Amino acid sequence: MRSQDWLGGLDERLRRQLGFLIEIDRLKTVLRGTRIADESRRENTAEHSWHLALFALVLAEHADDAVDTLRVVRMLLIHDIVEIDAGDTPVFGGTPAAEQAEREQRAADRLFGLLPDDQVDEFRSSWDEFEAAETPDARFAKALDRLQPSLLNHVVGGGTWTDYGVDEATERATTRRVADAAPALGDALEAAIADAVANGWLRPNS
Amino acid sequence: MRSQDWLGGLDERLRRQLGFLIEIDRLKTVLRGTRIADESRRENTAEHSWHLALFALVLAEHADDAVDTLRVVRMLLIHDIVEIDAGDTPVFGGTPAAEQAEREQRAADRLFGLLPDDQVDEFRSSWDEFEAAETPDARFAKALDRLQPSLLNHVVGGGTWTDYGVDEATERATTRRVADAAPALGDALEAAIADAVANGWLRPNS
Repeated sequence: MRSQDWLGGLDERLRRQLGFLIEIDRLKTVLRGTRIADESRRENTAEHSWHLALFALVLAEHADDAVDTLRVVRMLLIHDIVEIDAGDTPVFGGTPAAEQAEREQRAADRLFGLLPDDQVDEFRSSWDEFEAAETPDARFAKALDRLQPSLLNHVVGGGTWTDYGVDEATERATTRRVADAAPALGDALEAAIADAVANGWLRPNS
Repeated sequence: MRSQDWLGGLDERLRRQLGFLIEIDRLKTVLRGTRIADESRRENTAEHSWHLALFALVLAEHADDAVDTLRVVRMLLIHDIVEIDAGDTPVFGGTPAAEQAEREQRAADRLFGLLPDDQVDEFRSSWDEFEAAETPDARFAKALDRLQPSLLNHVVGGGTWTDYGVDEATERATTRRVADAAPALGDALEAAIADAVANGWLRPNS
């Protein structure tokens, strides 16, 4: 990256906004375990976030409690920005939760802290709400964040399921949020899981 | 991609929605001319779309006419989905406009046509509005779509400017939409252009 000294000539608010937007380009280099559908490579977190935002735009009607689509989309667009500093936390085989949570808090402080103060509050509260997973918007956003990788695992015939030898009970426990927040999407995921077991991409439990 | 026969067991609406969401995964494999900030590779269109949506969330206040952030974000998230069939249209050195426009219309018919009928209309009208670039929301979205690659060209010290030997007058003409839709962002871009000329990343005109 070349010198961004030219930003110094802008007013502070715009300088901070553009500095943030340039910094978060790095999310394009954070790799996840999930493969993209053509199986050519692993998915990065920026394109994963785009995909999830589309899931929200298309599937919002299935949320069990009514959701505010813009709030859900915003959460999904920013929910993984902390991975620039903290790295991805794989659903299967990841870092101990407490350690990773602390890293992510520090990452949120630094990264959202690049923005003007009022936007720090706006973005940080959206991220905190997502992490807490208590409001209808956050519960639905979290559900989509579980649904998408499972669908991609099915599309590629295994993916992280095969990498980590996941069994169907573990997969169901990991994705319980989907049925809780959106029953119709939970039923669809159950159909994908049953098909994956039948194809040998998820280990059966009995 | 493995058989998606399991979708056949779902009700038609959900089947179409999930089929669309799986199909658009291919946008992650469409490469643009622009490099990502760490200069390691070209940007793909899915991560570009994510980045633009963040530009909208952070910079909406600079739109000259008030904009509806959700409408702008939705436009930016879907504006390039047609590239799955039609390919990217580079700002510099691209396909003849009329030919590309026809390809994109066919792509929009097929891709948005995967959705349930009411969502076909919703997504298609959002895409048509973006393409027409007449409403305040679309003018601002188009401006961001010009601003982001120029900032990345500056960050990497040339990028597509150097690839195509672009001069500063051409760059200013190509990005006129930015100042038109958001004067403060136009001023910022002008500062980046001046700095790029001083650094030899854009050819001077005199």
